[in-house]
Amino acid sequence: MREPHDAVDVIRAKRDGRRLTPEMIAWVVDAYTRGVVAEEQMSALAMAIVLNGMDREEIAQWTTAMIDSGERMDFSSLSRPTVDKHSTGGVGDKITLPLAPLVASFDVAVPQLSGRGLGHTGGTLDKLEAIPGWRAALSNAEMLAQLEDVGAVICAAGSGLAPADRKLYALRDTTGTVESIPLLASSIMSKKIAEGTGALVLDVKVGSGAFMKELDGARELASTMVALGTDAGVRTTALITNMSVPLGRTVGNALEVRESLEVLAGGGPDDVVDLTLALAREMLSAAGREDVDPADALADGRAMDSWRRMIEAQGGDPAAPLPVAEHTEALTAEMDGVITEMDAYAVGIAAWRLGAGRARKEDPVQAVAGIEIHARPGERVRAGDPLLTLHTATPERFDRARQALDGAVRLDSDGAAAPASAVVLERVG
Amino acid sequence: MREPHDAVDVIRAKRDGRRLTPEMIAWVVDAYTRGVVAEEQMSALAMAIVLNGMDREEIAQWTTAMIDSGERMDFSSLSRPTVDKHSTGGVGDKITLPLAPLVASFDVAVPQLSGRGLGHTGGTLDKLEAIPGWRAALSNAEMLAQLEDVGAVICAAGSGLAPADRKLYALRDTTGTVESIPLLASSIMSKKIAEGTGALVLDVKVGSGAFMKELDGARELASTMVALGTDAGVRTTALITNMSVPLGRTVGNALEVRESLEVLAGGGPDDVVDLTLALAREMLSAAGREDVDPADALADGRAMDSWRRMIEAQGGDPAAPLPVAEHTEALTAEMDGVITEMDAYAVGIAAWRLGAGRARKEDPVQAVAGIEIHARPGERVRAGDPLLTLHTATPERFDRARQALDGAVRLDSDGAAAPASAVVLERVG
Repeated sequence: MREPHDAVDVIRAKRDGRRLTPEMIAWVVDAYTRGVVAEEQMSALAMAIVLNGMDREEIAQWTTAMIDSGERMDFSSLSRPTVDKHSTGGVGDKITLPLAPLVASFDVAVPQLSGRGLGHTGGTLDKLEAIPGWRAALSNAEMLAQLEDVGAVICAAGSGLAPADRKLYALRDTTGTVESIPLLASSIMSKKIAEGTGALVLDVKVGSGAFMKELDGARELASTMVALGTDAGVRTTALITNMSVPLGRTVGNALEVRESLEVLAGGGPDDVVDLTLALAREMLSAAGREDVDPADALADGRAMDSWRRMIEAQGGDPAAPLPVAEHTEALTAEMDGVITEMDAYAVGIAAWRLGAGRARKEDPVQAVAGIEIHARPGERVRAGDPLLTLHTATPERFDRARQALDGAVRLDSDGAAAPASAVVLERVG
Repeated sequence: MREPHDAVDVIRAKRDGRRLTPEMIAWVVDAYTRGVVAEEQMSALAMAIVLNGMDREEIAQWTTAMIDSGERMDFSSLSRPTVDKHSTGGVGDKITLPLAPLVASFDVAVPQLSGRGLGHTGGTLDKLEAIPGWRAALSNAEMLAQLEDVGAVICAAGSGLAPADRKLYALRDTTGTVESIPLLASSIMSKKIAEGTGALVLDVKVGSGAFMKELDGARELASTMVALGTDAGVRTTALITNMSVPLGRTVGNALEVRESLEVLAGGGPDDVVDLTLALAREMLSAAGREDVDPADALADGRAMDSWRRMIEAQGGDPAAPLPVAEHTEALTAEMDGVITEMDAYAVGIAAWRLGAGRARKEDPVQAVAGIEIHARPGERVRAGDPLLTLHTATPERFDRARQALDGAVRLDSDGAAAPASAVVLERVG
C-alpha cells in the first residue's frame, strides 16, 4: 500500500515552522504506531515540535490521533459519577494515595490509572507496591467491579489506551523531548479522554522539581489541557501547585505510604493535607457534591476505611508493617539558622540515587529507599540538628546521593522563622 | 565501561540553546559511531543543531570528531601537488568529469573521492558508470598509483574515511536534518581533511536546485568551510555559483557524460565551460600553477587525452558508444516568446523520476534516463519548438516527470532575448 504522506515532508514542515495539517498529523501518529515511520524520524519530529511548537488545533488533532491509536473505555455503566485526577509529577507527590479513597468515601468513583516512576519523580504504583501483597495489574472487569464496590482504584494503565502515546513517551524519554507543552498536554489528555472519565482535575506542578520550572509555562500547560478536556466533553479543571520544595516530609516509596497513612488518620504535614483537600474539593464539585466537606472524612475515619477496602481489594494487607531501610544516614545543620531553600529537584535526584527510582523502565526499585525531611523552608534549626535522613538498602549509594544534595538546602543564620508558602498557587478552568 | 556523558544531557544542552563542550562533542560523535548513542538520539540532536545552530568552535570540534572516527590518508609521497574540488551538488552538475582530467593535464594530482546521487541531484559515480567497463572502486594503492601516473582519479570514497559522517549522513537523509550549515560543512570538510589533500576548491551552489536557496546561506556555508580547511592546514577557497537553472543542456547520467566530452573537445555549453575554467584556475593557482591557462588544454586536446587515460585506468572504454534511451518525449513551447525561468529543482526532480536518480541508496539508476534542455533562460523560442526532451528506459515514468515540470519553465511573449547570467557569483577565501 502506498502511504499518503512522506515522513521527511512532515518533519521538514514542522522544522521550517509550518503548521501540520490534520491529515499529516493523523497519518504520522498512525504510521509511527504501525512502525512505518521509524523511531529516528519521530524523534526528529518531536524535537522540531519541542523547538517550533504546535498551535491549539494541531495539539487537539495530535491528541485525537493518539486516542484513535487504541481502545476507549466506558464508565457509564457505573452507578457512581467518575472523577479522575492527574498530576504532572513532582518530588514527594503521594497525594493520589490519600486522595482517591478520600473522594471515594463520598460515593464517587475514582479511577486512577497510574504509572511507575522514571527519573527523579516517583511513581504511584511503586509506592503502593511497598505494601505487602498489593498488586497493580487489574483487568478492565476487575477495575469496573472495584469502582462500583469500593469507589477507589489505583492500578496500572492497560496497554490498550493510546498505545501511540506509550511508544512515543518511551522515545521522548531517551531523546530529550519530554519538556514540551504540546507533547506533555497531548500525552496526558489522550489517555484521560480514552479512559472515559466524566470529569478530571489536573494538578499542574511548577518549580524546580517539576517539568515546568516557571509559572507561565505551567499556566500554558494547564489551560491547554483544560481546553482539550472540555472540547472532548470531560469536565476539566486544573490547580497550579508549588513544586519548588518537596511535598511533605518524605520522599520514597514505603516512606510516602507511611506519610499518606498519617494524612488518612487525620494528621500529616500541612502541605500534603492542604493539597489533598483542595484537590478533593475540586473533584467532589465536579461530581456534583459541593454539599460535603472532605475534611470531615479525614477526621472521622471514613477515608481510612475506604483506603483499607481499596488496598484489600487489590490483595494488599493494610495492617502489615511497612518495610524499613537497614541503612540510614543523617545530614545535619552546620550552624544555627532558618532554612530558606530546599531544592525539590536535588532531593528527587538524591532519593532516586538511593534506589527509590529507576534509570530504565526495566530496573527494580527499592521499597525502603528515600529521604525523610526533618526541617522545611521557614523552619528554625540549631547546629547539629538533623535536616534530612537518607534511607537505602544499599549503603554504597550514600555518596552519590550526598553529592546530589550539595547546596540543595540553604540556611540563613539571620533569618526569621516564617509560615510555609501556599501549596496551591492558582486555579484554571 | 562507564560512559563519561549521557546522550540526553547532550541533546538537552543543544535543545536549550547552549554550546556543546569539546568533550561532549568528542564523546557524542564517538559514542554514536560505536552504537552507544542510538540513532533516535542522534536524530534528535541533529534536529536541535538544525534549529539552534553551532558556532564556529563547535563546528570545528564536530569536524575533528568525525575525522577521528576513521583513518587519514596521505598524498605526500606523490611527486605532484594535490588539489581536490568539492561541489555541494546541483542539477546537471557534471563539472568534475571535464575538470579533473583538465587540471591533471598540468601535472597536478586531482583525487576526486565521489559519491552516488541521492534525491534530486545526480552522483558523479552514477554518471561515469554509464561508460562501458568503468569501475568506481579502487584500493588506496590503486588510487595512489593512478594519481602518480595519470594525475586524475574519480573513484568511490572508501569506508575508512570519517565513518561517523557516513552513518550520520544516512540518518540525516531520512530525518529531515540535511539542510544545516554546521552539519553540511562538517560533513564535507571532515572527509576532505581526512583524505589529506594539500589544497581544496569548493563549489558552493545557490538557488532552487541547491541545498542553499539564498545567497546569505551560501556565503555562510562557504566561509565556514574555508575556515575549517584553512585551520586544518588545507589551502581552501570557494566559488559561489548559480544553481537556479540547471547547469548546461543535459541532466542525467549518459547525457551528462556526452556533454562533458563536448567540453573536453573544446565545445559544450558556455556555462559549463565557464565554470570548468573558473574552478580549474582556482585549482591550478592553489597548486602553484598560476603560469598556465587551462583553456589551452581544452583547445589543444591535452585535457581529452588526460580523460582517456583516466577512464582506461579504471577499466572503461572511452571509445565505446554511450547508451541511449529507447523512449523519449519532447515538451514544446505553447507560444512564441523568451524563456524567463527554468527551475533547477523541478528539472532535477523530473530527471530523478525518469530514473536518473534513486530514492534509497540501494536503488539502481538508469544510465540512459534524463533530460535534454533545448532552450535556456534568455533564449527565444517559437510555438511548437522543443523545450525539453525527456529520456527513460521505462516510459510509464513520463507522467510523473511531466507533473514535476508543471510550471517549471516560464515563457514571456513580450520578452527580449538576453545573454545568460553569470555562473560564478562570488569568490570566498
